[in-house]
Amino acid sequence: MASLFTRIVNKEIPCYKVFEDENYLAFLDIFPLVKGHTLLIPKIEIDDIFDIHEPIFSGLWQTSKTLASGIKKSFPCQKVGITVIGLEVPHAHIHLIPIHSMSDMNFANPKLQLSKKEFEEIAERIKNNL
Amino acid sequence: MASLFTRIVNKEIPCYKVFEDENYLAFLDIFPLVKGHTLLIPKIEIDDIFDIHEPIFSGLWQTSKTLASGIKKSFPCQKVGITVIGLEVPHAHIHLIPIHSMSDMNFANPKLQLSKKEFEEIAERIKNNL
Repeated sequence: MASLFTRIVNKEIPCYKVFEDENYLAFLDIFPLVKGHTLLIPKIEIDDIFDIHEPIFSGLWQTSKTLASGIKKSFPCQKVGITVIGLEVPHAHIHLIPIHSMSDMNFANPKLQLSKKEFEEIAERIKNNL
Repeated sequence: MASLFTRIVNKEIPCYKVFEDENYLAFLDIFPLVKGHTLLIPKIEIDDIFDIHEPIFSGLWQTSKTLASGIKKSFPCQKVGITVIGLEVPHAHIHLIPIHSMSDMNFANPKLQLSKKEFEEIAERIKNNL
C-alpha cells in the first residue's frame, strides 16, 4: 500500500505545499513544533533515507538548502534545524524547523494548533521566499 | 578563536575517532544519548550547515551515509536518526544516532555516562564496520 506521503505526492491527500519539482515535494508538517516546520520528501517511496540512491540522495540535501533559506527568510530564527527520525511514516522525510533554542527541536513538545488559513499563509510566505 | 571542533581536527583536543579523510572527521559524542551516537563534521570551520559550499556539502551527506551503515551494523537499531541543531558549537555538525524509538532522539534526555574504555570499544566497533 502506498505510504501516506506517496498519497500526498499523488494528490489523493491534500497538503500545504511549499515546493515541488520532478523529484521532491515539500509541505508543512500538520503537527508543527513551530511555525514554518516543513517536511521535505523524495517523491520516490523509500523508507530509510540512507537507502536513497544517487543523484536523488544528494539532490534531496541540496533541495533542503534552498528550502532552509526560504524558511529562515520567512521565519527569522537562529538556525533551521534538521531532523530525520523515520519511525512514523515509512517514506523518508526531512524535518526542517526554524529554531531559537534546543527545545524548539524537542518532538515531545506539544504541537501547535493552527487554522487552515494560518497554514495557507505560512506556506505562501515560504513559497514567496524561495 | 578556533571552534572546539577545529581544535579536535587539529589534534589539540583528543576525540574517540571513528572516521577521517581529507575533508571530514567523525568521532563519538562524549555526551551520548545512546551507544554509537556519533558526530560528523566538515574539517572546514563553517557555523551553519546550510552555508557549506559544494562539493563539501554533498560530500558531507554522502559521508553520513557511509557512517550510518557502519553505526547500524555496530549497534543494531530501527534507524540511524539524523539531527542538526547547531546552537551549541559554532561549527556545523551532524548527529547520527542509532534509535529504537522517537525518545532516543530527545536531547532533553539524560546523557549516558561511559568510561574511556567503553568509548574506545564503541569507536573501534564502528571503525571496523565501515
